[in-house]
Amino acid sequence: MISKAKKMAIVGLGQIGGSYAKGLARANYQLIGIDIDLEAVEFAKRLNWIVEGGDDPSLLKDADIVIFALYPITFIDWIKENQKYFKEGALITDVTGIKVKVLEEINKILRKDVEFVASHPMAGREVSGIKYADTSMFEPANFIVVPTENNSEEAINTVIEIAKILNFNNVVSLDPCTHDEMIGFVSQLTHVIAVSLMNTKENSHLVDYTGDSFRDLTRIAKINDKLWTELFLMNKDNLASEIDDFVESILYFKEALVEENIEEMRRLFIQSTQRRKLFDRK
Amino acid sequence: MISKAKKMAIVGLGQIGGSYAKGLARANYQLIGIDIDLEAVEFAKRLNWIVEGGDDPSLLKDADIVIFALYPITFIDWIKENQKYFKEGALITDVTGIKVKVLEEINKILRKDVEFVASHPMAGREVSGIKYADTSMFEPANFIVVPTENNSEEAINTVIEIAKILNFNNVVSLDPCTHDEMIGFVSQLTHVIAVSLMNTKENSHLVDYTGDSFRDLTRIAKINDKLWTELFLMNKDNLASEIDDFVESILYFKEALVEENIEEMRRLFIQSTQRRKLFDRK
Repeated sequence: MISKAKKMAIVGLGQIGGSYAKGLARANYQLIGIDIDLEAVEFAKRLNWIVEGGDDPSLLKDADIVIFALYPITFIDWIKENQKYFKEGALITDVTGIKVKVLEEINKILRKDVEFVASHPMAGREVSGIKYADTSMFEPANFIVVPTENNSEEAINTVIEIAKILNFNNVVSLDPCTHDEMIGFVSQLTHVIAVSLMNTKENSHLVDYTGDSFRDLTRIAKINDKLWTELFLMNKDNLASEIDDFVESILYFKEALVEENIEEMRRLFIQSTQRRKLFDRK
Repeated sequence: MISKAKKMAIVGLGQIGGSYAKGLARANYQLIGIDIDLEAVEFAKRLNWIVEGGDDPSLLKDADIVIFALYPITFIDWIKENQKYFKEGALITDVTGIKVKVLEEINKILRKDVEFVASHPMAGREVSGIKYADTSMFEPANFIVVPTENNSEEAINTVIEIAKILNFNNVVSLDPCTHDEMIGFVSQLTHVIAVSLMNTKENSHLVDYTGDSFRDLTRIAKINDKLWTELFLMNKDNLASEIDDFVESILYFKEALVEENIEEMRRLFIQSTQRRKLFDRK
């Protein structure tokens, strides 16, 4: 367990940062909260999720552990401008959805006495702001810790401990490249598909005829445009290659359809059915 | 209301035919059930969903209304072989998911004293067989009646009445071409996308990292290969054209990504978000 004597801070009190604050406060950790939006800080204080907070980065001067729940570019810029305020030997972690570029940028500039263990809580809804903070979204979710050779065992274990305090269903460790390639397929490509399907044509006249299949498939077409533009650009090569592979797959299906190749269509359906069954929740 | 004196029959006691039987029996209609699978017939009899049944098409000789819950090609073949058993003046309807080809084939061969009103209950799960019969799937669903100029007002109203007895949420009328084009986009294209995403690559190693987005988007990749091959081939031109439009849309997005065109990526995200919001359940 992380000692209650350790001072923890969260920078960025949005949906994710707010949910971290709520979950850690529930476990009796005394948190510092930082956000440029003072209403978010007041909201967290009023609910006793943080014991002190504000927009002043010098509030971090005594923090042993700092969790960054910011958009990736904001996170990098914040470190550039404000890392002078970190306590000597502080441990920092993050929540961003891509890792190679973030690690590259942060490790290039980070003070040598501060350790960064990257992590990715695979949770979040299509809404933003601390008023949507909700720890229940962590319970079915995966938490991915993404250590590098620079990280100490102790620091990695501290970040895993945070995931456990927050009740994540599953904590796994991946290297940065494997993480970004995996995310390019299971998360980013699926968002590109949903967005592109909604953008294929004006379709408001179809609302009355739509069933659950279409609704489920396009749910994530409601997307935070600023955040996902950053995430996609920072994983551009992986994502572009995943899009190409998917387009090849769908055009292969189309060819079987146009040629009325019944055997091949059925083979593709049987394969997709078998593969998808493995993904059913146990 | 359809008079209880009318004799109704269902041909095909699978998931959909069984659910029709269950729902109509609950409303006290006395049904005849026909299936080549005598176990399905016994199942329906045991639960009092049908009062008589078997595999013999001559059981239909007194039926005023016959509902066909068969795969499209099986339905057409059945009519060819067995329509001699219909009562004079019988009304028939169906449940198949495409309409232009089915109407074309059926109307080419159907006895002139029998009236066919096509319909499409937009319900069903990724399972098959009467043991999965469940009327609750009709309650949130759309029922589409697809009349042609040959249909009488009375026959159309009888089919709409069946949908109401089964508690469909919404009953709408579409012409056959509009129906098939709509289905090509909201149903068939979404299935092609889910199937093709699962078929893009071997992905069993990703099971542990998968969140709800991927699961929701690929749920319909578990697909009845025989049924959907028939449905896709009977709507081939519409579906091939929808696939082309979607591929154009996703490649347009990829271009914006590769060129790091932030403004255009954000515009596409904002558009997809606005369009998708209209599809949220009220």
